[in-house]
Formats: sequence, structure tokens, C-alpha cells
Amino acid sequence: MRGAILYGPRDIRFEERATPTIIKPTDAIIRISAACVCGSDLWPYRGIQSTSSGPTPMGHEYCGIVEELGSSVTSIKRGQFVIGSFFTSDNTCPHCQIGYQSSCQHRELVGGAQAPLLRVPLADGTLVATPEVPSGDLIPSLLTLSDVMGTGWFAAVAADVKPGKTVAVVGDGAVGLLGMLSAKQMGAGRIIAMSRHEARQKLAREFGATDIVTERGDEGVARIKELTKGIGADAVLECVGTQESMMQAIRSTRPGGYVGYVGVPHGVELNGQELFFAHVHLHGGPAPVRRFLPDLIDLVWNGKINPGKVFDLTLPLDQVAEGYRAMDERRAIKTLLRP
Amino acid sequence: MRGAILYGPRDIRFEERATPTIIKPTDAIIRISAACVCGSDLWPYRGIQSTSSGPTPMGHEYCGIVEELGSSVTSIKRGQFVIGSFFTSDNTCPHCQIGYQSSCQHRELVGGAQAPLLRVPLADGTLVATPEVPSGDLIPSLLTLSDVMGTGWFAAVAADVKPGKTVAVVGDGAVGLLGMLSAKQMGAGRIIAMSRHEARQKLAREFGATDIVTERGDEGVARIKELTKGIGADAVLECVGTQESMMQAIRSTRPGGYVGYVGVPHGVELNGQELFFAHVHLHGGPAPVRRFLPDLIDLVWNGKINPGKVFDLTLPLDQVAEGYRAMDERRAIKTLLRP
Repeated sequence: MRGAILYGPRDIRFEERATPTIIKPTDAIIRISAACVCGSDLWPYRGIQSTSSGPTPMGHEYCGIVEELGSSVTSIKRGQFVIGSFFTSDNTCPHCQIGYQSSCQHRELVGGAQAPLLRVPLADGTLVATPEVPSGDLIPSLLTLSDVMGTGWFAAVAADVKPGKTVAVVGDGAVGLLGMLSAKQMGAGRIIAMSRHEARQKLAREFGATDIVTERGDEGVARIKELTKGIGADAVLECVGTQESMMQAIRSTRPGGYVGYVGVPHGVELNGQELFFAHVHLHGGPAPVRRFLPDLIDLVWNGKINPGKVFDLTLPLDQVAEGYRAMDERRAIKTLLRP
Repeated sequence: MRGAILYGPRDIRFEERATPTIIKPTDAIIRISAACVCGSDLWPYRGIQSTSSGPTPMGHEYCGIVEELGSSVTSIKRGQFVIGSFFTSDNTCPHCQIGYQSSCQHRELVGGAQAPLLRVPLADGTLVATPEVPSGDLIPSLLTLSDVMGTGWFAAVAADVKPGKTVAVVGDGAVGLLGMLSAKQMGAGRIIAMSRHEARQKLAREFGATDIVTERGDEGVARIKELTKGIGADAVLECVGTQESMMQAIRSTRPGGYVGYVGVPHGVELNGQELFFAHVHLHGGPAPVRRFLPDLIDLVWNGKINPGKVFDLTLPLDQVAEGYRAMDERRAIKTLLRP
């Protein structure tokens, strides 16, 4: 089969690679219905994060039909439509049991989902089936649950978003936008989007943003303070992962407030004394998508949320290179790929 | 009157200084019943933290009898026995209202409590009176509520200590020891004290520690993992404030667990990516003592807790220099000073 492979900075190719097969009895093979390009794929694409060992099969967001199962898999069946996380999990270890499946003691990072077929290890603990095979219009939203929506949701959970609270979101990429949707769904009273791109501001408002702040850094912080009578936001979602965005998030939060951070930190160092006197709660990390999958599938299935709107570019899988380029150049928020 | 003044590294003197008077109508003057030396006083004493502008009156932990009141103070009366925090608070601003009085918009740092008389600004929002003037044997425990006990308690609150949980405490100073007492009071199932000093281990056990770990750094972390079946502690109290102790705390915590940090950070830098993948909750800062004062006074008054046991040296105030020396040389856990 052919799939997306990253050879080096901005060199992504769609070419022949081995068709995945069952290796362990706990594996499943999924026929991909749709895959996509993640903001975190851009780190290695841009050469900021090195691909460890040569050409790397790309893609870790996926949904599709179960094609084949290892002999010990019991919770899903061939022909079912399933969604799984970018980190596999056994869903039975102590970390899984308290809802941190992305720190599962046996986790593996999924790779190579930008292809027609994908091997998913630990299928029983990782994959969740939808009630039936969905109609095509639901697939973009279901696909987001594999990572980007689950990550935005986790940012809001980590930031302790509750009804009536004032929430600020740093980052207007797909994760940030879905963080806003999540905050709205959790009953936030006010949602301040930090964004300077018109198309994204529009989607932000559609997802529930009540205010837009275009300033960044210290000016952005000052603007948040101004909007909150000098207090700061109750909850801030950090959805970027740079030093600037992290400090912007911490400094925008009121004392006693919560920062939920899900942007994979690149070059971030936090000064202990500043953090101490900021008096904020800090929590984040790789989203435990598996914890949220059943509830989020339910919300999508019943038309309560439509996170698939973040896809503003859909391409056939063989044009994956253009999908990366469009996101890299910020022409697209997020690219959906159809095999 | 005469009080303790720090002139420079290890140069503390007991000498004449101005008797405090009411300056603002919101002030109170307290006749100190007992004061003490704080672990954080040792930072400037050791010259690690500079005293900003010449000779500095020392001491921020206090309790005593109200001697004089500004004209606008209404909640306390002359002759009452009161306790207050090291940070004053109006107890009405938005930060106070959500329980973060140590980030009060009008806070002032108390200084000069190692003396017979002390001016306390914002008396209404800062001071809490005991039901009656206490007998002398209660005074050491009541004094601890001004900072060290409130700080240990906050560490346990910030670390989300709950009944049955496994708690580890980094630091066997007075704050760490009272963090153990707090965790015990909150129903922790297991309390692991990280300590290598025999006298402190003994007090740790008295306060509720069930296990002692003498290893530090990575070896200490490995020992905590060993004691918790490789999982890590549910809650870790960081009560030191160095890079080593902070990383020891973070790395000893299970994914999804909580670090409560109250040691004022000195030279601490946290790597964003390590923190991200550690998956811990991080919260701390200067303890909002005022939030806890009513409940903690109640616990002491009714004999439920006896935090005054951390004082293993009592000196008359004029021997304050020896009080610092004994703590600096770790001959004493904590020094109580009697005017």
C-alpha cells in the first residue's frame, strides 16, 4: 500500500510501504475511513523536532472499519467503525484506571495513520466502536475525537472549566478552537479567544467565543486583565507549546485559577519563583483521549457538537504533501485526508 | 523597644528600634505572646537571598494580644488574642473571596514580629481571634497557625490529599513535618516521609508518617516507586524549594497525581516537556493562611492537633541570634521566641 512518509524538513512523500499485519494477538488492523494532519506533525515537518531514525510513516489520528483482529481481542468486532487515541492503552493498568490512559504503563505511540490501513496495538484498551457504522457526514467529527477534539477537551478539563467561568484560550489552531467548543459545552460564561486570523476568529465565535483578543505576549495579558477587571481569567487553555504562549497563559490566569496546557512544549522553561507567586494550578500533558471517547462519541452521534468544522481542507490521501504545506503556511486550519 | 534586626549574612542583632504605632485606621498593634524563626528567614540569614535595603527587622509569624486598634477596625477588640498571616489581606477583594488571601490585591508582607510589639495592617481582613485568651500551653500550637502550620496544611490541600491516599513529603523541616500532620488529619492512608535526620524522623512518625525514605534525588524517587508498586505517590508535598527537591517531588508523583509545593523556589527552573509528560497536577505558592485560620484554630483549641511540637528550642527573645544559629546548623527544627 502507499502512505505518507516524512524524509526530512518539508519533504513528505506518498509512497509504497509495507502493508500492516497483525503482529501480536492484541492488535487490530483498521481500514482508515479518514485521517488528518495534526498540528504536532508540523514540528518534525518543519525540522524543529528531528525524526529519529530516517524516513518516518506519519499520522496518528484515525478512525475506520475493523478489518482484522488478533486472536485475543474481545471488545470489538470485524466490520465495526472504531476510533482510537494516538497513544494506545491497555485500559487496565493503574494509570489507565484513574483516567490517564495516555500514560498507560504499556502505551505505544501510533504512527502511520496517513495510509489506507493501520495496525493498532492493544486494541481492546484503545479502540471504541460507534453504535453503528456512521454516515459519511459524521466522519470528520468522529475523526477529531482521535486526538484534536480529545485534546481540546482535556485542556478544558485540566483548566477546571465550570459553568459561568471566564475562560481564555491561547492558540487559535484546531486544538485551541476545539478547546473553545469544549469550554462552551461545559457551560463557560465567557470565552476569550486569543487570535489574530480572521477565518479562525469566525470559527472561534461559532464555537462559542464571546471575546477576541488580537494582542500577544505581555500586551495580550494586559488585555485579558482589562477584560476581567484586573482579576485575570478563571481558566486558561494553553494550546500552542512555546515559551511565549505558556507565559501568556500563566500570566493571564487569576491567582487560584487554572491553566490547562496541551501544546507539546518546545523549549519551554518555567521559572519556579514566578510560578510560585502566580498562584495558579497547572495541569496538562498528552490528552488521555481514551477517557473521553465514549462521552464524546455520544455528543457527536447525537448532534450536540460538530468539531469536524475545524477541517477547512479535504484532500485525497495521495495529495498529503499539499495538506501539510497548506497547514504549514497557515492557509488551512486542519487538513482531512481521504484514502 | 528592642527587636531582631538582620544586618547581613549570619549577622542578626537584638537592638533598639522604633516602637510601632497606628499609621492607618485599618491597623492594629499586637503585643506579641510568642514569635518564632521561619525556615524562610534562613534564606536571607544565609545570604542566599539579599536583604534589599540595609538592616531589616525580622519575623513574620506572630500571635498575641490586641493592644491598640485603628479607628476603622471593627471585627476584633482590644484585649483579644489574635493570630494573623505573614501576608496581610483585606479579605474582600476577588482573590480573597476565592480563598487566595496571600494574593490579596492589597496585601503587605508582615515584618518585624521578632519583637514585643507588631503593627499589623488590614487588621479586619488579616487577624482572627481565638474564643478566649488561651492558656500558655496552647500558645506554641496557635503560633504555628500564623505560617508554618498553615503552609503545611496548604501543601496538603494543594496536593489534593484525600482519605486513603498515598502521600509523600519532600522536606523534613517544620513545614514538611506539619505537612505530614495535615495529611494525617485529612485521612491519608500512607504517609512517606523523606528524611535522614533521626530526631525529625521520630517527630514525623508522631505526626503520622508510616514510612521513612532516607534516599534523596533520583534514588529517593526510585525508593518511592518501589514502595508504591512502580506507580508513584498520589500526592507529594514539596516543602523545600530547591531544584533537587522540586524534581524529586514531580518524579515521585504518579501520572494524574498532585504536587503541592510550598517551599519558596530558589533557582528552580522546570523543563516544560518533562512536566508535560509527567502528567502531574502542580499547585502551590504562598499559603493563604487566612483561609485556614478559623478551622485550624478550632482543631488546636479542641486538642485535635498539636503542631506546637515542632518547637524543639525555646529562647527568650533577646537570644534570637542563638535561635537562628541553632536552626542554621540544624541543631533545632524550629525556635520559639518569648518576649
